[in-house]
Amino acid sequence: MAILVTGGAGYVGMNVVEALLERGDDVVVFDAGAQPPAIVRRLRPYRSRVRIVKASVCNAAALERAFARRAIDGVVHCAAVTAGPAREASDPAISIDVNVRGTLNVLDAARRHKTRRIVCASSAAVYGESLYRLARIYEDTSPVAPVTLYGVTKLAAEGVCVRLRTLWEIDVVCARLGTLIGPWERDTGVRDNFGTHSQLARCALAGMPAVLPVHTVRRDWVYSRDVARGLLALLDVKSTRHAIYNLSAGIDWGVLDWCAALAAEYPRFSYRIAAAGETATIGYTDRDRCLMDIGRITHDVGFHPQYEPATAYADFLAWLKRTPDFWNAQQ
Amino acid sequence: MAILVTGGAGYVGMNVVEALLERGDDVVVFDAGAQPPAIVRRLRPYRSRVRIVKASVCNAAALERAFARRAIDGVVHCAAVTAGPAREASDPAISIDVNVRGTLNVLDAARRHKTRRIVCASSAAVYGESLYRLARIYEDTSPVAPVTLYGVTKLAAEGVCVRLRTLWEIDVVCARLGTLIGPWERDTGVRDNFGTHSQLARCALAGMPAVLPVHTVRRDWVYSRDVARGLLALLDVKSTRHAIYNLSAGIDWGVLDWCAALAAEYPRFSYRIAAAGETATIGYTDRDRCLMDIGRITHDVGFHPQYEPATAYADFLAWLKRTPDFWNAQQ
Repeated sequence: MAILVTGGAGYVGMNVVEALLERGDDVVVFDAGAQPPAIVRRLRPYRSRVRIVKASVCNAAALERAFARRAIDGVVHCAAVTAGPAREASDPAISIDVNVRGTLNVLDAARRHKTRRIVCASSAAVYGESLYRLARIYEDTSPVAPVTLYGVTKLAAEGVCVRLRTLWEIDVVCARLGTLIGPWERDTGVRDNFGTHSQLARCALAGMPAVLPVHTVRRDWVYSRDVARGLLALLDVKSTRHAIYNLSAGIDWGVLDWCAALAAEYPRFSYRIAAAGETATIGYTDRDRCLMDIGRITHDVGFHPQYEPATAYADFLAWLKRTPDFWNAQQ
Repeated sequence: MAILVTGGAGYVGMNVVEALLERGDDVVVFDAGAQPPAIVRRLRPYRSRVRIVKASVCNAAALERAFARRAIDGVVHCAAVTAGPAREASDPAISIDVNVRGTLNVLDAARRHKTRRIVCASSAAVYGESLYRLARIYEDTSPVAPVTLYGVTKLAAEGVCVRLRTLWEIDVVCARLGTLIGPWERDTGVRDNFGTHSQLARCALAGMPAVLPVHTVRRDWVYSRDVARGLLALLDVKSTRHAIYNLSAGIDWGVLDWCAALAAEYPRFSYRIAAAGETATIGYTDRDRCLMDIGRITHDVGFHPQYEPATAYADFLAWLKRTPDFWNAQQ
C-alpha cells in the first residue's frame, strides 16, 4: 500500500513526501512539474519506495492510471495553483481548473479505488477578510470571506469535498493551512506569492541586502515540517470527527527575528527597514493576520506543533546549508 | 444594441426575456436547451427583436460568436445547473463546469466585447445553513455557508465575479435570488428541485390531489416577474455601489394559501396534509427559511417588489390559463 501525494514536488507536497519516506511509507509523487536536482537528490536514498508520476490533477486519465497501477491507501492532495494578481487576471481559468476540478478528479479516482482516506490541503485564504477583522479564527464560527481566486477556488474545493463526503460516503478531510515557512518552497511556475521568509533566505544565500517594508508584518506562520506532521496526523487518525481543520502553529510570528538568525549565519547578509520613499526589496502585505485557533486538530487528532520560531529557524538554516543549490538551480 | 440572456429559455431567464421584450429591448436568448412550444409561441410576436442561440455557456467559442455577431449592451447571466442530490452524486463535474467555468466564460466574452454591465443570477443557496440559523439575512454580515454543490458553485461564481470586477475593471453585479414561484419553471434537464408551487399547479392542472408534508414550510418566496424586474433594475441603474445584492420579496410566504387559490380555480383539485404514516406527493424540505433583507437593493437600485402572495397568485393563475400545455408538453 502506498500514499499518493498530489503536488508532491511542490512546497507542501515535498514536505509531506519527505515525512512519509522518513517514516517508512511507500509514496507516489503525483506532480505536473519537473523535479529540480535538489529534490531528485533528496528522494534518491528512497528510490525503491518512491514512484514519480509527472501529470496534472486536471488529467483524470493519468490519475486513474496511477491509482490502478498500485493500491493507494491514502491521498494527501497538495496540488494547487497559487496565483498572484497578474496570473489571476491573465488566466483565471487555471485556478478553477486545477483547484476545483482537479480536486474533484482526485476525489473521484480515490473513491473508485476505495482509498481509505483523502486529506486535502486547503488554506487560511478561505477566511479572507476575516483574518484581518477578527481576533482569532475558528473553523465553524469565523465567516469565510475569500478575496483572491486562490481563496475562492480553495473554498469551492472544500465545499466539493464536504458535500461528496456525505453523498459518496468517502473519508475526506480538509486542513486549512496557515502561511508556511520552511524548506522546499520554490517557483513551480504556478506559485506566484513567494513567502517572506524564503525571499529573505534567498537574499542571505546570494549575499544581497534585504530592504523590508516599513510595516514588518506579523501573522500565524507555521513551519512546513509541522504542516506535514499535521497532514499525516489527519491521514493516520482512526476517524475524523469534522471535515475541516485549521492547521497552523497557533502562535504569532514576525520576520525580524528570522532576519537576525540569517545574519548570524550568513555574515554577508544585511537587512534594514526601508527609509522614507525607499522601495522595499522584500514584498509582502502590510496587514497583520490574526491567529487561527488549532484547538480542534489538537483535541480531535492529537496534533501539537513541534516547531516554534527558534527551532524552526535552526532547522531551516540547517536545510539551507544542506541544500544551497535549491534556488540557484532555478534562477 | 441587445441584451444577451444566458439560460434565456430557463425559469429565471425566460422571465427576464419576457420583461425585456415587453419593454422594447432586443434580446439574444443564449440557452443550451430546446424551447418547448409554449415558449416558441410566447416569443413569436417579438420575432424581429429576438435571436436564439442554442449553446451552452461552457462553449466559449459559441459565446464569442454571439458577442461578435451584434453589439451586446448588457448581459443577464441566468444559465445554471440546479442539481439535486442524485445528480450531485452522479455528475458533480457539471455543476462546476456550468456554474463556475461557464460564468467565467460569460465574463470573459463580455469583457472582450466591452459590454456595459453583466448581471449574474446567484442564489440564496450561498447562505446555506445561515438561512436556517439566523433571523434575517444581510449581504455583508450573514455568513455564507453553502451545503449543496449548487450553493458551493454559485458562491464560487460570485467570488470569480467580485474578483474580476476589480482585476478586469468590469461592471458585474450578482443578485442572490430567493426561491422563485411563478411562470416558466420547467424541467430543463438540469433543474432537479422543482418548486413547491409549480408542483401544486401541475397537480391542479392534472386534476390530481396533492398530499402535503406534515410541516407546511414557510420561506422567502419571490414572484418570478419580480425577480426579472429586480435583475433589470440592476442592469439599468447608473452605477452599482455593491457587487452583491439580495433579491427577494422580503416577506414570508406559505403554501396553503396557494393551494386554496388553486382549488378555487380548479374545482377538481384537492389538497390535504399527509396523515400519520402517509407519504406526501408534494416534496420539499421541512425547514422554514428566514427572510433575506432587501434593504440594499431597495436603497441603491430603487427596486421594490410589486407582487405579494395575492397578486402573485392571481398573475400565476392567469398565466396557467394562457399556458395550459406548458407542462403537459414535457411530460
